[in-house]
Amino acid sequence: MTVSPNFAIGIDIGGTNSEYGIVNHRGEILMKGRIRTDGYDTVEPYIDELYENLSPIINTYHNQGNVVGIGVGAPNANFYKGIIEYAPNLRWKGVVHLSKLISEKFDLPCLITNDANAAAMGEMIYGAARGLKDFVMLTLGTGMGSGIVCNGQLVYGLDGYAGELGHTIIIRNGRKHWKTDLRGSLESYVSATGVKLTAIEMLQNSNEPSSMRNLELNEIDSKSIYECAILGDGMAIEVFRFTGQILGEAMANFVMATSPEAIILFGGVIKAGDLFLQPAREHLELNVLPMYKNKVKIIFSELNEADAAILGASTLVWDMPHMKKVSASL
Amino acid sequence: MTVSPNFAIGIDIGGTNSEYGIVNHRGEILMKGRIRTDGYDTVEPYIDELYENLSPIINTYHNQGNVVGIGVGAPNANFYKGIIEYAPNLRWKGVVHLSKLISEKFDLPCLITNDANAAAMGEMIYGAARGLKDFVMLTLGTGMGSGIVCNGQLVYGLDGYAGELGHTIIIRNGRKHWKTDLRGSLESYVSATGVKLTAIEMLQNSNEPSSMRNLELNEIDSKSIYECAILGDGMAIEVFRFTGQILGEAMANFVMATSPEAIILFGGVIKAGDLFLQPAREHLELNVLPMYKNKVKIIFSELNEADAAILGASTLVWDMPHMKKVSASL
Repeated sequence: MTVSPNFAIGIDIGGTNSEYGIVNHRGEILMKGRIRTDGYDTVEPYIDELYENLSPIINTYHNQGNVVGIGVGAPNANFYKGIIEYAPNLRWKGVVHLSKLISEKFDLPCLITNDANAAAMGEMIYGAARGLKDFVMLTLGTGMGSGIVCNGQLVYGLDGYAGELGHTIIIRNGRKHWKTDLRGSLESYVSATGVKLTAIEMLQNSNEPSSMRNLELNEIDSKSIYECAILGDGMAIEVFRFTGQILGEAMANFVMATSPEAIILFGGVIKAGDLFLQPAREHLELNVLPMYKNKVKIIFSELNEADAAILGASTLVWDMPHMKKVSASL
Repeated sequence: MTVSPNFAIGIDIGGTNSEYGIVNHRGEILMKGRIRTDGYDTVEPYIDELYENLSPIINTYHNQGNVVGIGVGAPNANFYKGIIEYAPNLRWKGVVHLSKLISEKFDLPCLITNDANAAAMGEMIYGAARGLKDFVMLTLGTGMGSGIVCNGQLVYGLDGYAGELGHTIIIRNGRKHWKTDLRGSLESYVSATGVKLTAIEMLQNSNEPSSMRNLELNEIDSKSIYECAILGDGMAIEVFRFTGQILGEAMANFVMATSPEAIILFGGVIKAGDLFLQPAREHLELNVLPMYKNKVKIIFSELNEADAAILGASTLVWDMPHMKKVSASL
């Protein structure tokens, strides 16, 4: 007897675009597409558009097996409640009952989680964290996200909002965050936005020559700073060294809190490689007690950056209760 | 048919004394006693002495039911490995195979964990955290310990050393810790030792009058500072306000990390009550994102301070694999 294959839909909702794909159990994306997220004032026409695009694909794969559910990664998404609450990066305001709306439109079960938690699930099932029971996922993009896995389970906490390590304070009375107003939070230093702010501060606070001074203010970003750094610009190198130091000090705290086997890094900032990874490792080791030294691995994500978010979102489907019943009966 | 009752032995190993007790399933300590911890250069004669004291009691309760195991809370104890490693507060040096030695001497299964994890287990099963699945336990004594519970499970991490929140850095480049040499770790501010150091610093750094100036240096401790504070001494009040602020800022970070339903506080420092609890709550709320505000409960332990450590240690026994088999077969 051959068992007909199961397929999951993964959707990654970003501030500008939403990417979707059909994923099989081996983590292969068989088909993918994209719609704009920011083209809709309210969520209902957005879901209509998503349905227009996805339903022909779903029909195709329903002929080859079973499309068993939809997993969504989205900013400020709450796993327990199935809602997006007050997401500053989305145009849909207030509380959006995303899981219910999608599930009703598609007539398929739907689970949602925040994008960093989805990334952690993706790494655990298909990527660098395969087989790990205790790890921390840090996504260093425009903002910073995180997911904490303990005993093989994603930590959601009381109400589904655990894992906001980017908003924890690393420098007391430090840099004021552009959105939260918190002072000295980790995101304001180690995200791509943080890297840019560090460069601008360094340029303003010294007269040291730097090739970054040839850039227009709006050209300064983690990519252009990196380009200056690999050409040997001392100040640009110092930007990444400082970023790495702050990340290392923060990771030392995370290690003493949940004692992960590995910390998985993902996102645009990691393209700077050893320029920030080497100081990050060094300051992690300098700030932990002896019993933690030289134990935790710092690993870059093994997932293709374009696919990771879809894959991560799709893993929610394999964990759905009706899927567990299927597995148990096989 | 009456089922004969089960009893657990709980042992709390402190730097000076070790307390032990026989505990029933309802968390009642039926009998307890104490031996010196610091009277023995090596662990073997200590265990002999423990056996001399406990074996008559064990025989008594073996006649009334079954003494089913021994749980031990000890500084630097590793749950997974059953060892104590390099405990700065104990005279036994290096690696001590405590669980194996006790188990062989008593012919009973033995599990060990660090004292703060034992406290968290005690609160979860018998105390203020009954029914909670996500909470953080902070013990504020001479030192500071912590235990993190997520999804109803104590977080042990990769190798059993998770939950050392006292050593995480709260003030970058802050006060140097008297033992670890780390700068600005939480323990160096919010433990009883930290409270004392804060008072001494304030006295040295100002000429402000304070009734604390009437104390000899070796009389300054969290108790005498508290006595000055309740009599209205402004500087003593400020010592606890500052302590509370630092604790609140740290708790804000913990809340955004694992989103606990409650933070349970235990230990000598909490006797200062609202003097530090009120600023702690205030600075927790000031430093979390809106989605966490006014959600987390800060609760004082409900266990008798003298009994909590024995009770906490004893809970390890109810979780032993052979006990689960017993429950399943009843």
